[in-house]
Amino acid sequence: MRAAILTAPGGPETLVIREVPQPDPGPGQILVRVMSSALNRADILQRMGRYPAPPGYPPDIGGIEFAGEVRSCGPATSKWQPGDRVFGITGGGAHAEYVAVGEDTVAAVPERLSWLEAGAVPEAFITAHDAMVTQAGLTSGEVLLIHAVASGVGLAASQLGAALGARVFGTTRSRDKLERALTLGVHDGAVTGDDLSSLGPALQAFTRGKGVEVTLDLLGGAYLPASIAAAALRGRIMLVGAIAGSQATIDVRQILGKRLRLQGTVLRSRPHDEKVAATAAFARDVLPLLSQGKVNPVIDRVFPLAEIADAHRRMEGYESFGKVVLDMT
Amino acid sequence: MRAAILTAPGGPETLVIREVPQPDPGPGQILVRVMSSALNRADILQRMGRYPAPPGYPPDIGGIEFAGEVRSCGPATSKWQPGDRVFGITGGGAHAEYVAVGEDTVAAVPERLSWLEAGAVPEAFITAHDAMVTQAGLTSGEVLLIHAVASGVGLAASQLGAALGARVFGTTRSRDKLERALTLGVHDGAVTGDDLSSLGPALQAFTRGKGVEVTLDLLGGAYLPASIAAAALRGRIMLVGAIAGSQATIDVRQILGKRLRLQGTVLRSRPHDEKVAATAAFARDVLPLLSQGKVNPVIDRVFPLAEIADAHRRMEGYESFGKVVLDMT
Repeated sequence: MRAAILTAPGGPETLVIREVPQPDPGPGQILVRVMSSALNRADILQRMGRYPAPPGYPPDIGGIEFAGEVRSCGPATSKWQPGDRVFGITGGGAHAEYVAVGEDTVAAVPERLSWLEAGAVPEAFITAHDAMVTQAGLTSGEVLLIHAVASGVGLAASQLGAALGARVFGTTRSRDKLERALTLGVHDGAVTGDDLSSLGPALQAFTRGKGVEVTLDLLGGAYLPASIAAAALRGRIMLVGAIAGSQATIDVRQILGKRLRLQGTVLRSRPHDEKVAATAAFARDVLPLLSQGKVNPVIDRVFPLAEIADAHRRMEGYESFGKVVLDMT
Repeated sequence: MRAAILTAPGGPETLVIREVPQPDPGPGQILVRVMSSALNRADILQRMGRYPAPPGYPPDIGGIEFAGEVRSCGPATSKWQPGDRVFGITGGGAHAEYVAVGEDTVAAVPERLSWLEAGAVPEAFITAHDAMVTQAGLTSGEVLLIHAVASGVGLAASQLGAALGARVFGTTRSRDKLERALTLGVHDGAVTGDDLSSLGPALQAFTRGKGVEVTLDLLGGAYLPASIAAAALRGRIMLVGAIAGSQATIDVRQILGKRLRLQGTVLRSRPHDEKVAATAAFARDVLPLLSQGKVNPVIDRVFPLAEIADAHRRMEGYESFGKVVLDMT
């Protein structure tokens, strides 16, 4: 099969398309012909040599999500048949024509989604749903703050949050992106630069002084103290990324006084049973919304597998709006 | 009744014993003759003018815990009778001969506890149990790290943690206090000064590289990044105080990668129904241990109400080991 091989830690030019042996589905696994995949920050970091694949996944093939057709089923499987359309997350190896994955870690692709649309769904929607709903317990009428709302996860979160009845406030670094996000579940937002001082008053006004119940923070750095300052009593701040910097200086008394919860979350490194649970919760809560078109994947651009280096460049340029998708057909 | 009145924001000398009107128990409330109470950091901060009483509590009388005898029961009460021995937490007003409190916010004092012992129980044991068990979900075999283990909350936590089967590591600033804590549930510990660099290796050794599952942090400041560095995968860090400083510089990537949870907790400002729930959980889980002598209040010194200013000085001197208790008889 063809796969995008990480030949050495470095820039996008280190990615080379090569023929490699197809994986064999083990017990409990199915073999999927990947029809589309997408890029994630994890792929960039893995390519740079800063985020090795978890044990049990190919060290030299990135790709942590996929949509595709079941080709064969390994021993001790019962849920799927060849020809079924499935999508899901994996610890790596999805930037290849075939992946072997646990049959419990995929869900059925809704009919109305094309392969390219389906490939833009899993990581963004499972991450957003797991963080906001399963972990932070977002409920109708609460205020949801999303930093980096124009990202794949951000736009999944904004649509899911709005569908659940939350009032959604998004931050992004460009006016154009914010205006597009306002059509995707975001009720109000702010264009943020290096100075976050205007964010507090904007959130005060948006929440009528009550503060933010749930924050989805993909940025870290200076955004974390701003999120703590803007949080409501018993607010939950979900840390999903640290693109704006890993060091953050925070005020412990605010965390105490407002009884805040800060929680870090990643999907990739989770053990199998937790991935199964996250996928099942996604299938239960999010698939119906996708089937009805109440939430939709947002595709920035599509690149064929052969042009994966350009896809990496697109993602690293911070110009993308939504998901950078790979056409694997 | 006699009460310790906060006459003006300032030092211990601003506390004056005065005669004031006895409170009336309202619907759902009981009137308790306070036999003993204890001091908490909240009392010091309130005296300084930095922590006003929550709405509905006397602005000029401190005291957030008590043990005493039920004297009368207000309308719509059914749980207690005059003469019952009860103890509990309250939003303020317990440094007086009488308090009126919700009948659901007290528990029965075990027979084997004297009044002075009983007064040293509520805040320390409810705080420790609520933070470690109810919120952090501490389970048998996990490692519990307690910063400021020689405090009232710290010594309640160490005994409770050990009784629940946790392995307990405590930090304190004096060798003498650590040695006494080793007889109260603490399995190992470290004497910490301004330099916390030796704490990491000590915890590595104590946890055999696995890290700390639950941290109870009364200190904040530089202890928070040290707790984050020492945490195990999916560790829970409960922030209960910020005595060592409110500003903390933390590493967001560690919170992400280990999927940590940091949570702030205070009891005093909670709404009535949450205090009821915390008291009920304490009655269910902790009273049996107190009745059997498996956990015990630790009394540093006892002061009569008339000497409450000296009790404040004792607490502020950071020399105390366990609770500074007030004899209210």
